[in-house]
Amino acid sequence: MQSDYISSFSFDARLAPYDIAGSIAHVQMLAAQKIISASDAKKIISGLNAIEDDLEKGKKLPAAEDIHFAIEQELVKRIGEVGKKMHTARSRNDQVALDLKLFTRTAGKLLVQKITQAQTAILNCAQKNPQVLMPGFTHLQHGQPIFFAHHILAYGWMLQRDKERFEDLLKRLNENPLGACAFAGTAFPIDRAQTSKLLNFKKPTENSVDSVSDRDFIAEFIFACALTMTHLSRLAEEMVIWTSSEFGYVTLPDHLTSGSSIMPQKRNPDTAELVRGKSARTLGNLIQILTILKNLPLSYNRDMQEDKPPLFDSADTTLASLEIAEEIFAGLKVNAKAMEAQCKKGFLLATELADYLARKGVAFRAAHTIVGKIVSDLRSTHGPENLEDLPLSKLKSYSPLFEKDIYPFLSPRNNASAKNSYGGTGAKALAIQIKNLKKLLK
Amino acid sequence: MQSDYISSFSFDARLAPYDIAGSIAHVQMLAAQKIISASDAKKIISGLNAIEDDLEKGKKLPAAEDIHFAIEQELVKRIGEVGKKMHTARSRNDQVALDLKLFTRTAGKLLVQKITQAQTAILNCAQKNPQVLMPGFTHLQHGQPIFFAHHILAYGWMLQRDKERFEDLLKRLNENPLGACAFAGTAFPIDRAQTSKLLNFKKPTENSVDSVSDRDFIAEFIFACALTMTHLSRLAEEMVIWTSSEFGYVTLPDHLTSGSSIMPQKRNPDTAELVRGKSARTLGNLIQILTILKNLPLSYNRDMQEDKPPLFDSADTTLASLEIAEEIFAGLKVNAKAMEAQCKKGFLLATELADYLARKGVAFRAAHTIVGKIVSDLRSTHGPENLEDLPLSKLKSYSPLFEKDIYPFLSPRNNASAKNSYGGTGAKALAIQIKNLKKLLK
Amino acid sequence: MQSDYISSFSFDARLAPYDIAGSIAHVQMLAAQKIISASDAKKIISGLNAIEDDLEKGKKLPAAEDIHFAIEQELVKRIGEVGKKMHTARSRNDQVALDLKLFTRTAGKLLVQKITQAQTAILNCAQKNPQVLMPGFTHLQHGQPIFFAHHILAYGWMLQRDKERFEDLLKRLNENPLGACAFAGTAFPIDRAQTSKLLNFKKPTENSVDSVSDRDFIAEFIFACALTMTHLSRLAEEMVIWTSSEFGYVTLPDHLTSGSSIMPQKRNPDTAELVRGKSARTLGNLIQILTILKNLPLSYNRDMQEDKPPLFDSADTTLASLEIAEEIFAGLKVNAKAMEAQCKKGFLLATELADYLARKGVAFRAAHTIVGKIVSDLRSTHGPENLEDLPLSKLKSYSPLFEKDIYPFLSPRNNASAKNSYGGTGAKALAIQIKNLKKLLK
Amino acid sequence: MQSDYISSFSFDARLAPYDIAGSIAHVQMLAAQKIISASDAKKIISGLNAIEDDLEKGKKLPAAEDIHFAIEQELVKRIGEVGKKMHTARSRNDQVALDLKLFTRTAGKLLVQKITQAQTAILNCAQKNPQVLMPGFTHLQHGQPIFFAHHILAYGWMLQRDKERFEDLLKRLNENPLGACAFAGTAFPIDRAQTSKLLNFKKPTENSVDSVSDRDFIAEFIFACALTMTHLSRLAEEMVIWTSSEFGYVTLPDHLTSGSSIMPQKRNPDTAELVRGKSARTLGNLIQILTILKNLPLSYNRDMQEDKPPLFDSADTTLASLEIAEEIFAGLKVNAKAMEAQCKKGFLLATELADYLARKGVAFRAAHTIVGKIVSDLRSTHGPENLEDLPLSKLKSYSPLFEKDIYPFLSPRNNASAKNSYGGTGAKALAIQIKNLKKLLK
Repeated sequence: MQSDYISSFSFDARLAPYDIAGSIAHVQMLAAQKIISASDAKKIISGLNAIEDDLEKGKKLPAAEDIHFAIEQELVKRIGEVGKKMHTARSRNDQVALDLKLFTRTAGKLLVQKITQAQTAILNCAQKNPQVLMPGFTHLQHGQPIFFAHHILAYGWMLQRDKERFEDLLKRLNENPLGACAFAGTAFPIDRAQTSKLLNFKKPTENSVDSVSDRDFIAEFIFACALTMTHLSRLAEEMVIWTSSEFGYVTLPDHLTSGSSIMPQKRNPDTAELVRGKSARTLGNLIQILTILKNLPLSYNRDMQEDKPPLFDSADTTLASLEIAEEIFAGLKVNAKAMEAQCKKGFLLATELADYLARKGVAFRAAHTIVGKIVSDLRSTHGPENLEDLPLSKLKSYSPLFEKDIYPFLSPRNNASAKNSYGGTGAKALAIQIKNLKKLLK
Repeated sequence: MQSDYISSFSFDARLAPYDIAGSIAHVQMLAAQKIISASDAKKIISGLNAIEDDLEKGKKLPAAEDIHFAIEQELVKRIGEVGKKMHTARSRNDQVALDLKLFTRTAGKLLVQKITQAQTAILNCAQKNPQVLMPGFTHLQHGQPIFFAHHILAYGWMLQRDKERFEDLLKRLNENPLGACAFAGTAFPIDRAQTSKLLNFKKPTENSVDSVSDRDFIAEFIFACALTMTHLSRLAEEMVIWTSSEFGYVTLPDHLTSGSSIMPQKRNPDTAELVRGKSARTLGNLIQILTILKNLPLSYNRDMQEDKPPLFDSADTTLASLEIAEEIFAGLKVNAKAMEAQCKKGFLLATELADYLARKGVAFRAAHTIVGKIVSDLRSTHGPENLEDLPLSKLKSYSPLFEKDIYPFLSPRNNASAKNSYGGTGAKALAIQIKNLKKLLK
Repeated sequence: MQSDYISSFSFDARLAPYDIAGSIAHVQMLAAQKIISASDAKKIISGLNAIEDDLEKGKKLPAAEDIHFAIEQELVKRIGEVGKKMHTARSRNDQVALDLKLFTRTAGKLLVQKITQAQTAILNCAQKNPQVLMPGFTHLQHGQPIFFAHHILAYGWMLQRDKERFEDLLKRLNENPLGACAFAGTAFPIDRAQTSKLLNFKKPTENSVDSVSDRDFIAEFIFACALTMTHLSRLAEEMVIWTSSEFGYVTLPDHLTSGSSIMPQKRNPDTAELVRGKSARTLGNLIQILTILKNLPLSYNRDMQEDKPPLFDSADTTLASLEIAEEIFAGLKVNAKAMEAQCKKGFLLATELADYLARKGVAFRAAHTIVGKIVSDLRSTHGPENLEDLPLSKLKSYSPLFEKDIYPFLSPRNNASAKNSYGGTGAKALAIQIKNLKKLLK
Repeated sequence: MQSDYISSFSFDARLAPYDIAGSIAHVQMLAAQKIISASDAKKIISGLNAIEDDLEKGKKLPAAEDIHFAIEQELVKRIGEVGKKMHTARSRNDQVALDLKLFTRTAGKLLVQKITQAQTAILNCAQKNPQVLMPGFTHLQHGQPIFFAHHILAYGWMLQRDKERFEDLLKRLNENPLGACAFAGTAFPIDRAQTSKLLNFKKPTENSVDSVSDRDFIAEFIFACALTMTHLSRLAEEMVIWTSSEFGYVTLPDHLTSGSSIMPQKRNPDTAELVRGKSARTLGNLIQILTILKNLPLSYNRDMQEDKPPLFDSADTTLASLEIAEEIFAGLKVNAKAMEAQCKKGFLLATELADYLARKGVAFRAAHTIVGKIVSDLRSTHGPENLEDLPLSKLKSYSPLFEKDIYPFLSPRNNASAKNSYGGTGAKALAIQIKNLKKLLK
């Protein structure tokens, strides 16, 4: 009666190819070690291959408590009692740990690839728009002018760290749990080095109790997904703000927006909003896996069956969202005029006035105070927000150190172009940055 | 009026030594690049060193909006207006990113060291109790007998992965944000390679917008703490269960237990319970940092000020809890008799009967069914739970394949000792495991 | 191409009956207000009823972006263009808010009913086992003897609070969002009081912007589920511990346990473990819904589409787990002997010695110290853990106030029976408690 | 040595007034029931009052393991051994449950009051700006024009639900745990009805085990805080967006903004950003309390000591943030011109064209399609975004049903004013809404 509550078949069926690959390696080893006969092994392997073929063609296995049973039952139905020998010197505990590691490895590699694609789209978008100027933001307030290319490349570096996290994880999960059996190992003369080799693991796990209790790789994978999605949520937020009527900085390609059932004029950035919304899933998944594991005594406990939905969902969500990110950058229409117009607003170059004074020997904090006064006076008198429009006499009334040579600094474009400190927005620095990122994407 | 709400001074004061170290490196570079004069630099550095000395002696700085202002104000108070030059070609944005990276690096290294100490305590405890047998558990039910040493070594490997995660993080945060300034870089001819060298970073960060927006290292650090604490919560759970009157497997050292205000007999495993309870903090911290960052447009936003409490709390909690884990293993009294008595209960060796039949050619699943029947009959007739006590004739009534040579397998000790598959609980495998772990702790 | 990413049809299809009910009420009102003609309304309603009938028979609608479109498209396919009039003076925004409230109301009522059933099972289990004594625990250490019935009734009161939380929520969501339209209301002369009456709401919502932005009822529902599941996780934890070989306090009914693929003797408390594991889902869901809503500007944003999976999953998980709880109490076999044997262990009645001295005028803290000494001496000399076995002379050597009349207090059964303070474990108090809970379940 | 790890004194010291109030009530009852003498009670009570007086004057108690011990030790120091009698028929378990309930009750009442103040500020702000028109948003895109007053009143209703949640909680925590003792009740003839009355509880709790295990009120309180903070985070997000240079809809009062250390022109909405950032704390706290409780067997476990930091932090954070919200509405400068200018952009009234056609008998979906075409044509030809500027002949070319009487509907102000469905933005509906909210704030 409780079969529904206990069954994981509705969600673990997708582990089938990993389960079959693991079983084939196990059976090969059993035969090599003479634990089962070569002919039995052959029958089992060919049965498993046939099942795999059918699954690939879209056939479904009859429901069972879980995918592991489902496959074994199908095998026995096809090749008879000999099929049961597959489970010699193995337990569902090491079997499921193996399947999950194989799934996570595959998903991790796919994510690395999708991240690279998204980075490439960012790089292309940056290279297509080398000269577009925009206000840089802190607190969603204009700070200093920067190049649009520089701004979006920030996401390229976030994704680079995300990629490294997946790569670290792939390295760390490179130990084969098969052969831990229930949790104690076995007296059968199994060869775990052989299955490790067959399944492309670096080596067997070192402690059988740990091997079946460990879900670190799932928690770490889900965290890496959650942080990647957090980055994408920041991008999505910017897309939503930038496509507002008030900003109008960019236009999303049509296939990433949608309309309203009641307001015919709407072109809503739905995909970007969903990236934000779906990032919440990956946070939920992270809490789920960690609270599953918290306070669990060793070794395997059935609570751990619940590790699969958050794992699968995080993988699917992050993969799909990376594709959206890639499409955003591939299809983004940049409204350079709107961005550059905003560079003339909000006293964007006030910092330059201060830096100018600093270069002339005023302590920066003191220079900052002087410029603060200029801006505050202009605000209260509704003076020009574009500081280029301020006459020198006016400037001199605040500090006699101001000279005509201040004006070149007050051009947003000059200003941004000059910021060539390493990693800065200046044109030279930007060229180096692009070269460095490109190298990593090869 | 809102100064209380805005101020971070109550929690960021502990960043002072990192802030001062960063400022000294910055000022050295400014002087080397001739952005400020050598004599100004000298004054500033000696002022900062004096402040640092006072802080180390326990003096407090007057409260300010944050620690960065507090130090600067103190410096100006001591050395005059020249102190303000320290902030040339720098912003609070890159300054705080730097301070946080320096803190995280220090905390990460300390955690690596504490983890190693805890692992060493586990190893010592395992080596002090090489022969103690206990029931291995799945679902908190007896599974198969294992060696106590093997069981606790599982924690050694969990911690090993935790350590690797901190090491990966240390590698990844090895990029210096100083010089990103507000977020756009600067036109001052700063030398970020020099400050990187002075501050022991591998290189400067690659994108100035990313440099001040990035809190990945905090999220990753908090996650690594949360997973470490999840492992310790599993250990703590076992300590709580094992010190119960019903289990009586171990006794915690007195200084890790406490009494009751009303029940004089109690020796409660409070520290273990607090490890569990405090692991919840680190989960809360993880959600906090990720939801702070979710949906934040670039670059710096004041929301990010809230990154410090969860960072500090996770570091403190995990360090203190690792010390508890170390003390648990250092002081644990193992009640071998109680554990071994339980190995005779609960039909612990039923799997051996099945393996025996499997070795004689019965498919494992079929063998499993036969043995299931034996156990179920013994249960309903209240027969012996220690299968060694079962006469051969009885066994043969279930399968004629059983022979006298089954009995050695039914001794829990023999049984565990024979499980010598790589990573298994058997004595030989265990020796290899211990050697492998020991190598990693050097 | 992005239809997969944007579509909610895979999960919102289950809203169909609510969507249809809402549309019927809306159309009835539109006709009554003469916004559409009576004959159009009749056609639409009969079309909707026909769709509903088909859905109940198991027919599926063709996939669409969401269930609302799917129903409308089907309607137009069946009755022609007139079907489109259904959407007059309505938007998907108020429509989806309505559907979600109707779903939540139905799920909330069902949960109230399931909670009552679980409470009834607890009450029955308590009444079937009125005399069973067990050690009461703090810190998983023996504290004082209590009646088993008293212990399990604690869960009855937890569930009572859970029920009240769902009832409060049902009261609070009793406001009809239909008629808020996109978010601004409408100039059509709609009658929201009428649709409220038809749909069994107390009144219309008060602010149209809030009406379509509000997902409080989902967050509150998911929280109420999470806290209920937290309670059930505590029960599940006790079941796991109590069914261990070491405790042996209870036996779960067979249909709530399962075996091992490798260890034939296992009867694992899988359902209880899954209750624990699944409680993690509801925590994940809670974080998900709150982080979806965090930082969202008004009014509707597409992020909110992601509110459905955590809502549905929390409802399903909690309903199914409450059924498990009910079955646990219905089928639990209580091993009174094992529990009572443990009441003689661990100096369980040490508090009584202290209370005795207190009643004779010793300050409780002082009495506590004396008894602490007795216990510690007995521990180190391996004296009796059952204090009834201690001779009076021995007791007198610690305090001359001890007399023969102490012994009745040292019987665990006497002891528990005497604790008749309101809500206490004593027989009289317990009878009152049972009567009080029973009243609430009528 | 582990005293630091175990001690809660650093955070529970603020429970002192509640602890003292609880002890006084307990001692009064003990005397009334003749469990201790009237003269002893008098001494204890006057000692406690004296301690309370000193604490109010800012004196600190010497550190102890927790506040309960600290007070008792101080009492004994002052009045001698008789002080220990205070603890008769009580345990730290029921004592701490009581203290926490008293704290939560006080905090809950304060929150209800602060919410009302914030609502009043919203109401005042709405009434000060009755005619200001703004674009209503979905997806951060212009939807339809609404009144600013209507928009901000949405927050008034969110807060109303928040208030009700705190009120429900206050009702639910109205049961006194004192007298549950360790967890089993007591044989002392205590009168829990009396302490309930003295401490202003409706009645004693019904089950002593539940009484000391229950932290529902903390979880529910923290959830109610988290949802309130989620609402405030939405407000804060709007403030951040609306104060951007691009929007310029509102100006925050100076004391709620702050400058930049490097960019002198900045007026950053720091308090609003911190409301967002601090809402993350309350989410973290929520996960913390629930994961503390998950899987905890009954009754008291030391893990629960960790319930205090998230409780206190949630109370403090939410109270302070509500004050910020109140100040935002009290000091907000509304830039009506900027908002109204945006109402002419983005084809804001396209829905009206569709509604107009619908009123003339076109099915709404069909009307929507026609208007979609108009907008798309205008977009591609850069035609007017303010539909009032569109000549009738142009409109007629899309549908002959358009007549001159369409134009009044195309005035944003007319349009908004006419939406008088209940809860709508229209002037009449708005007046009713304001009246209804005002009634609730009395």
